[in-house]
Amino acid sequence: MNAQEYVKQIGQAARAASGELAAASGQQRDEAIRACAAELRRSSDELQQANAKDIEAGRSAGLSDAMLDRLKLSDKEIAKMAAALEAIAQQTDPVGQTIAGYNRPNGLRVEKRRVPLGVIAIIYESRPNVTTDAAGLCLKSGNACILRGGKESIHSNTAIGQCIRRALASAKLPAAAVTLVETTDRQVVTELARAEGLVDLIMPRGGESLIRAVVEAATIPVIKHYTGNCHVYVHEQADLAMAREIILNAKTQRPGVCNAAETLLVDAAIAGKFLPDAAKALAAAGVELRGCERSRQIVPAMKAAVEADWSAEYLALILAVKVVDGLDDAVAHINKYGSHHTDAIVTDSASAAQRFTMLVDSASVMVNASTRFSDGGEYGLGAEIGISTDKLHARGPMGADDLTTYKWIVTGAGHLRQ
Amino acid sequence: MNAQEYVKQIGQAARAASGELAAASGQQRDEAIRACAAELRRSSDELQQANAKDIEAGRSAGLSDAMLDRLKLSDKEIAKMAAALEAIAQQTDPVGQTIAGYNRPNGLRVEKRRVPLGVIAIIYESRPNVTTDAAGLCLKSGNACILRGGKESIHSNTAIGQCIRRALASAKLPAAAVTLVETTDRQVVTELARAEGLVDLIMPRGGESLIRAVVEAATIPVIKHYTGNCHVYVHEQADLAMAREIILNAKTQRPGVCNAAETLLVDAAIAGKFLPDAAKALAAAGVELRGCERSRQIVPAMKAAVEADWSAEYLALILAVKVVDGLDDAVAHINKYGSHHTDAIVTDSASAAQRFTMLVDSASVMVNASTRFSDGGEYGLGAEIGISTDKLHARGPMGADDLTTYKWIVTGAGHLRQ
Repeated sequence: MNAQEYVKQIGQAARAASGELAAASGQQRDEAIRACAAELRRSSDELQQANAKDIEAGRSAGLSDAMLDRLKLSDKEIAKMAAALEAIAQQTDPVGQTIAGYNRPNGLRVEKRRVPLGVIAIIYESRPNVTTDAAGLCLKSGNACILRGGKESIHSNTAIGQCIRRALASAKLPAAAVTLVETTDRQVVTELARAEGLVDLIMPRGGESLIRAVVEAATIPVIKHYTGNCHVYVHEQADLAMAREIILNAKTQRPGVCNAAETLLVDAAIAGKFLPDAAKALAAAGVELRGCERSRQIVPAMKAAVEADWSAEYLALILAVKVVDGLDDAVAHINKYGSHHTDAIVTDSASAAQRFTMLVDSASVMVNASTRFSDGGEYGLGAEIGISTDKLHARGPMGADDLTTYKWIVTGAGHLRQ
Repeated sequence: MNAQEYVKQIGQAARAASGELAAASGQQRDEAIRACAAELRRSSDELQQANAKDIEAGRSAGLSDAMLDRLKLSDKEIAKMAAALEAIAQQTDPVGQTIAGYNRPNGLRVEKRRVPLGVIAIIYESRPNVTTDAAGLCLKSGNACILRGGKESIHSNTAIGQCIRRALASAKLPAAAVTLVETTDRQVVTELARAEGLVDLIMPRGGESLIRAVVEAATIPVIKHYTGNCHVYVHEQADLAMAREIILNAKTQRPGVCNAAETLLVDAAIAGKFLPDAAKALAAAGVELRGCERSRQIVPAMKAAVEADWSAEYLALILAVKVVDGLDDAVAHINKYGSHHTDAIVTDSASAAQRFTMLVDSASVMVNASTRFSDGGEYGLGAEIGISTDKLHARGPMGADDLTTYKWIVTGAGHLRQ
């Protein structure tokens, strides 16, 4: 079977399952999610055996230690996956929520009610926990999903898929409610992105080349999850000790993730006072600094930054440093070089905070807080399906609510349009 | 200048203007909208002179009377366009509205705040009033826009564009806040659909081939506005007189629009009683009926429907008629053949209404009301930018709110992630 036929087949089955999910109660969907958690716990040994094959293949293929680490399924990791599912089951059911409801002057009742999107395809790499997080969030929001993990985690995902299938059966939901793509043919991704009428949304999560390939091929809606080039801007009226702690946390608390800071912007008025202290603390934490000319006049030990550094997403212990001439200069830099993900200002000035939050065109804008808080859990959304770098439909951290659309339900008593 | 360079140029200017709009107050944006209404009224004569050239060219090119009618700018039409702008200026400002706001247990303040999307491209055909409606709604929501009308209305739109430019200047907003594409090169549409980083959303409104071309080319988000194949389903527990009036209104009140009914579904249990009466009333209103075999056994005067009739969007006084075996059969037909736009049930049964609204996968679901109510004005949204047949971001009638996205604004007091 070629990729087109394969996608048509799984797409039609998922579409049919989405109809059953739309008619299922929230209780039934939560039961499936809880059963899946129980299946994971029960199958810990076999999951780790399958995972060992992926680890071995990954090691032979020369995957980096960081990649192997993300791939690894330990007892602890499996327990975390199960706990995440149980937390999802506990969340409020988004389906059926009234977003707005009112009576029109002519007596017509108008209600905007949250409903599942239908069928969601998610394309991702390496980490097997994405498989259960995504399945859980899609079930929670009443959607069928088609999950396509990376080829490096194929054995792990297949084993996880068996757990999910048993859970769906025990909750009397169709197997096609969660479909795991068990082929590594890349053409399947292209076909999923063009499956109009069968797939309602495709979400690529992973490297830039994967996302670009999906965007180029897609004729269905895409929500992209690019990584972030996040900034911390230290305003002249900042509490400098607070600013130092925030940039340290934003850069070093977990450097490999999308909401870690990559560039530090410092107002010229306080750069002479702030930079030596901050540079010392950052260097002590193992951070390599790459500075503009003005910042190197203050801290000569910094390497010289080149143009590419302003756009770089290091995902490593490297930080670009630039001295700017006030808030508008900082905003212009961020809007030009940033990735519109998460950017922070440190200031004690209310008007500076207000102007910065208004003008910075980013999904999350932090005031006196680390960029690392840009996260579904930290925002209280429960588990997150990802962090959208798009503006349409959902922006920033996405929870189960963001996997829904709405219907207008209009009730009359024989109303006719004049 | 080729299309790619041209789009880059207008896109960069629009992007810069969107920054100024984001910083402008709602009052300033409303002033520009009101000034535009005043300019239209003042320029009525010159607008009609420009429009006469389009009408003449359209007549030579053999446009239908219906098309020429939609193209025509009379005194009355211009007054309506001005009044629509004034109504938009009166609406509540969507920008800056707090969608959600709460404190997290760690004291972090999280706010989800409505902000403009940025730059919106709208591609449309014939009716010149779309130009001012779209410009007004984009200004209202703080967006810069790039408007590309049909080549048949190029003189009218160019003249309207001059009014808009004068209005922007009088409100001290940049001219590039509203850009009218004044070339008929179709390649410009393709380039707009690929203008990543410059255009945030493209909305094609018009024929299916236009929409398909945009979807195929697009690498930026698209919201589609297909026309509708709307159904009225008469349930066995319907008030039959009400049902007759609803299908008459839904079919004949304005047959050429997307929320007019195209198919009538009738429960077998009441078809013998309902159809003769309904067919008589519809025929008296000039409607041609095309029925399934079972309906033709009841009303033999009907033409025989063929498979294509179930998917047809006649936009004319033609109605497909089908006898169904209860609610689930009706739902299956609608979800298979419909366009997910607007579908109605007529019933006195609360449980039937509940099941129908849950299972029909459409943007608007009507209970005991005409499909013709599916409209931004009727839903109380103010002017509408269109009726989305997509599920992502906005579904059904779209008002100014739907031209916004949001930002997460997170305020701490030196908060660090642990």
